[in-house]
Amino acid sequence: MNAASEAEFSRRLEDAAAATEAALDKLLGAAALPGEIARPERLLAAMRYATLGGGKRLRPFLVLESARLLGLSGEGPLRVGCALEMVHCYSLAHDDLPAMDDDDLRRGRPTTHKAFDEATAILAGDGLLTYAFDVIADPATHESPLVRAALTLALARASGLGGMVGGQALDLAAETAAAPLTQPEILMLQAMKTGALLRFAVDAGAILAQAAPEEAAALSRYGAALGAAFQIADDILDAEGDTAALGKRAGKDAERGKATLVGLLGLKGAKSRRDALVEEAVGALERFGDEAAILQEAARFVALRNK
Amino acid sequence: MNAASEAEFSRRLEDAAAATEAALDKLLGAAALPGEIARPERLLAAMRYATLGGGKRLRPFLVLESARLLGLSGEGPLRVGCALEMVHCYSLAHDDLPAMDDDDLRRGRPTTHKAFDEATAILAGDGLLTYAFDVIADPATHESPLVRAALTLALARASGLGGMVGGQALDLAAETAAAPLTQPEILMLQAMKTGALLRFAVDAGAILAQAAPEEAAALSRYGAALGAAFQIADDILDAEGDTAALGKRAGKDAERGKATLVGLLGLKGAKSRRDALVEEAVGALERFGDEAAILQEAARFVALRNK
Repeated sequence: MNAASEAEFSRRLEDAAAATEAALDKLLGAAALPGEIARPERLLAAMRYATLGGGKRLRPFLVLESARLLGLSGEGPLRVGCALEMVHCYSLAHDDLPAMDDDDLRRGRPTTHKAFDEATAILAGDGLLTYAFDVIADPATHESPLVRAALTLALARASGLGGMVGGQALDLAAETAAAPLTQPEILMLQAMKTGALLRFAVDAGAILAQAAPEEAAALSRYGAALGAAFQIADDILDAEGDTAALGKRAGKDAERGKATLVGLLGLKGAKSRRDALVEEAVGALERFGDEAAILQEAARFVALRNK
Repeated sequence: MNAASEAEFSRRLEDAAAATEAALDKLLGAAALPGEIARPERLLAAMRYATLGGGKRLRPFLVLESARLLGLSGEGPLRVGCALEMVHCYSLAHDDLPAMDDDDLRRGRPTTHKAFDEATAILAGDGLLTYAFDVIADPATHESPLVRAALTLALARASGLGGMVGGQALDLAAETAAAPLTQPEILMLQAMKTGALLRFAVDAGAILAQAAPEEAAALSRYGAALGAAFQIADDILDAEGDTAALGKRAGKDAERGKATLVGLLGLKGAKSRRDALVEEAVGALERFGDEAAILQEAARFVALRNK
């Protein structure tokens, strides 16, 4: 990778973040509120708070870039990116609750239940998850109902019992388990909790662009490796990082005795595994040639990020 | 309405409940769990607890009967009924949480967070909501992706910010509001909180059967009136009922100073409004002739039920 494509990657990531922020702001604007008689203003304010004004918007970026790699751009990928970001942000609002991870700080700001209250944070999460499916299934996302139904199914599977929600449940269970998790168990947990949504992001690009099966499969392999690299980088950051840079509390994993790959493999082992995953992600996109340079750079960025 | 159709209605309601219970048991069976390495067993157990073994299954019944009125039966309506019941049950699990309505008892059993714990109840609700969209968007629900996408959109709208979640937020806000709600505000709140899902049930029948617009509109008018009658009956039950018969605590509304139509109109006024809504629901289905007798009886049942 050369400096030019690194700069191009940074530019594209920033562009995607700006486009996502603007689209989310519009989707979660006053027009989202029904009627004039009784409007859940506070709920919408909490949904906006939980979603707007922060984050790298990596997931929407991945939707946009994987669709672009297959020749599709425009409103559709942006809407799917927004829906995915709503699911991601709802999960953060719920995970931060006192009954779950009990976090007060997120992206350097008070968490949603701190800025509002617990009931509102729960409902805001519920509202965002529901709205994500509204946005995805709307004809504005894609003219083909087959594409919209496929996106709905893929998002539900990535974020439900067999994906993100199931992974979070396993993570909570691990904190009180009698025996520490084994490496295959940690890998499975992470693939569900974090990996499934990242993989959905690139799968969504393929679904939107109605990609040929072998292209969709290559992107999916990329997404799986990227997701694994993301999570191992997260574990490394938690072990090495500092709270100020992260915008959330560092060192939490060790403090809680949480089983991570850093704990199992050591820092050096974890970094070597991370690098192998980056190579896997980069290799999966070889068939696309130079066009894939941005996504390949994204895999490096995700693995080597410092927050 | 004669005794024969009342008996037929009871039989159909029981049949729908049994079919729904069996289908939910299957959908939430071990096959729903991913992999063999790390399985979120406790989460699935909580999702099952929140969903199985109780309730009249009125919403699935309405899906089945509205589809049947338009000539459609089989797996599709049953799957949509199950998805709808998952959304209903997720909302109960979240509403019962300490941060929300703080209820210990539901259908005569400990609420989900009492039987498990708060984190698991939050995640079980999230998992059920997500799984509902999985079930709806699956090709097994309907061969037409247009129908599946339309069902997804309708369910998301009925259960989100402009529907159930928004209504619950308004309900919570009303408890601490400076001024009591006006009648139009209460009607709007109730139409969102309870009415939207009941109306979706009959709209779903029309979507599944690909009904003509005027037939769909008639069913939708029926659903709106039925939903309003359901909620006013709920207010009357809370004012008149007793905890043992309800399987949940009675008299809560007055205790909390919650604005209800009984509070605004008095018991007599509320009952007269309820009866008018039943007539409206019955009248909306006139075009369907005798075939609609079961749904018309359902409107009477919903309005006059004693629990």
